[in-house]
Amino acid sequence: MLNNIDYKPGLEGVVAAQTRLSSVDGAAGELIIAGFPLEAIADKATFEEMVYLLWNDTLPDAAELAEFRAALAKRRVLSAATLEVLRAAAADKVDGMDALRMAASTLNLGESSADPHDDALRLVAAFPTIVAAYWRLSNGNEPIAPRTDLGHAANTLYMLTGDEPREARVRGLETYLNTVVDHGLNASTFTARVIISTGSDMISAIVGALGALKGPLHGGAPGPALDMVFEIGEAANAESYLREKLSRGERLMGFGHRVYKVRDPRADVLAAAAAKLYQADGDMALYKLVLDVEQTALRLLEEYKPGRKLQTNVEFYTALLLHGLGLPTDLFTPMFAISRVGGWTAHAFEQQTANRIIRPQSVYLGEKTRRYQAIDGR
Amino acid sequence: MLNNIDYKPGLEGVVAAQTRLSSVDGAAGELIIAGFPLEAIADKATFEEMVYLLWNDTLPDAAELAEFRAALAKRRVLSAATLEVLRAAAADKVDGMDALRMAASTLNLGESSADPHDDALRLVAAFPTIVAAYWRLSNGNEPIAPRTDLGHAANTLYMLTGDEPREARVRGLETYLNTVVDHGLNASTFTARVIISTGSDMISAIVGALGALKGPLHGGAPGPALDMVFEIGEAANAESYLREKLSRGERLMGFGHRVYKVRDPRADVLAAAAAKLYQADGDMALYKLVLDVEQTALRLLEEYKPGRKLQTNVEFYTALLLHGLGLPTDLFTPMFAISRVGGWTAHAFEQQTANRIIRPQSVYLGEKTRRYQAIDGR
Repeated sequence: MLNNIDYKPGLEGVVAAQTRLSSVDGAAGELIIAGFPLEAIADKATFEEMVYLLWNDTLPDAAELAEFRAALAKRRVLSAATLEVLRAAAADKVDGMDALRMAASTLNLGESSADPHDDALRLVAAFPTIVAAYWRLSNGNEPIAPRTDLGHAANTLYMLTGDEPREARVRGLETYLNTVVDHGLNASTFTARVIISTGSDMISAIVGALGALKGPLHGGAPGPALDMVFEIGEAANAESYLREKLSRGERLMGFGHRVYKVRDPRADVLAAAAAKLYQADGDMALYKLVLDVEQTALRLLEEYKPGRKLQTNVEFYTALLLHGLGLPTDLFTPMFAISRVGGWTAHAFEQQTANRIIRPQSVYLGEKTRRYQAIDGR
Repeated sequence: MLNNIDYKPGLEGVVAAQTRLSSVDGAAGELIIAGFPLEAIADKATFEEMVYLLWNDTLPDAAELAEFRAALAKRRVLSAATLEVLRAAAADKVDGMDALRMAASTLNLGESSADPHDDALRLVAAFPTIVAAYWRLSNGNEPIAPRTDLGHAANTLYMLTGDEPREARVRGLETYLNTVVDHGLNASTFTARVIISTGSDMISAIVGALGALKGPLHGGAPGPALDMVFEIGEAANAESYLREKLSRGERLMGFGHRVYKVRDPRADVLAAAAAKLYQADGDMALYKLVLDVEQTALRLLEEYKPGRKLQTNVEFYTALLLHGLGLPTDLFTPMFAISRVGGWTAHAFEQQTANRIIRPQSVYLGEKTRRYQAIDGR
């Protein structure tokens, strides 16, 4: 019999999957995605190449890429029923992640074949359309129909505003999407694997993963890191503002990570991407302020929490990069989902190839011999 | 570092939760639900009492029960947007579990407060309305609005046909719903706990659980057990039919269970409920045929698979009981969900009270030093 001694709170330290999709080494500050060190691929590949790589364990050649791009592009349009759900959600002002979950759950409608590969294409292709449509509807604007002639990242930006984005912005978004596409067995990826392990379908698995990503303990909060910079306003205020926060024992948003004990490799990649974006097409004063705040924060963290080695994390540069792309903070977690669905679907495929139902156990702490009393005797 | 030696395929034998909700002892053939041996409560409590018990660890008194029943009854009505999703799903003939997942995912619409208790009430209350509406729409009929004067089980049957059900049928359904409401840490219950452990919301957790329940490795297939009885047609054919199947090495649907090595206690409870239902209001010829088939099957299983001790399982009597209630096999898994949502929500509450994010790890088996080739060099 299993007993309380076998209980693994949070399943910490338990290995629940073998994978070829990504490897997170927090001690070395190393992230491998499908065989590539993150920094060797994130700022080079398009997002379509990255998803193809995760699904096929190899980069596509030109013909394969063209076919894959077309397969995604033609699945961007939402059904009338999905759009109606988003209109109702906007009228009720529901949370953006809830709206995405509602709409994603309707992707069986229309021409779904219930084939996992077709469903995965529909999910990856439709997420930007859902997110953009919901954001526009929430702001009183009609959705903009997707274009098939644009790449995945370019079309995502296009559907938000109706303007064809400049190349620097497209590249900035591709790099962001590639950087956060997969990250070991986090809670949402694990959710997708548990659901598909029962023999369920791809859409059910990804809808479950979306629910997990929404949680603040998982999806993170990239908004507050930038809010702090806006509150500081100018470099001269940084030290006094941060000292006050640290003296009160408050946490500095955007610094420190559970797994990475050295600098998160994603932070470096996103920092470089942000530098390029702001130089080409951004508010350089804000960019410089952010760097000043970062340097001051790192210096003060070493002073207030010596030896803790708190580093700038992925959320800090996510906020800077996405802000530079013109995205409001409400879109940060949905943009994370637009990327991570590439990893979720890849993990679901991987789980299907050598499946075993994922079913841990519980220990029972309650009574065992209660006796039923009729209601008038209670 | 974690390595491959730590890999626990399927998380078998790993304890992922402590619970006061249910205990499954497969060796003893014992199922405890919230302190009660199953057979001490399943055929006595209403489903509302059972859900109240799971959520509160105590049965309600008369005033508490009246309040709880009213709280559920007023949340039975679906929003217009939810009904539109079901109409679109019916037009596309989507699977019943997919339709339930789509509609459940929209339950944030309308008057949702995002309070977990309110959301849990909405989910438990609305599942029968969704299932009945979708079944009617799929058969070309308009949905029947719920009634607030009927109990949960009675209203469920009422919404399917528009006829107020007789007491024997209501009691039969209550007993079924109570019997399968919770069963340790199965894959769907675990999914709900993983999702809520990220700090996400109740609706996201239950929508994920629905996706897992849909999987044929989990939600089971209570339909085929009865199909076999219909194929046999009369008692005289049972032995030759079953011998032929067993000689071909086929599995007999409705017999054997992964966990229970003795008789599944749920089978006994459902068998007694089926006996009462068919005697009061059923096709006694079919009932007798089923008993004959069962006895013949058990005898032949002992002959063909000696020592395996294969017993009649919960699916066998689920099929008999639900068929006796007039439910087609398409509704069997959705009816399972109507029950199990009581357990899922209880586990989500339990997870929230002493939460720790559930996040196991993976081991990486892939390469680590791939180098990016531009597309024209591939």
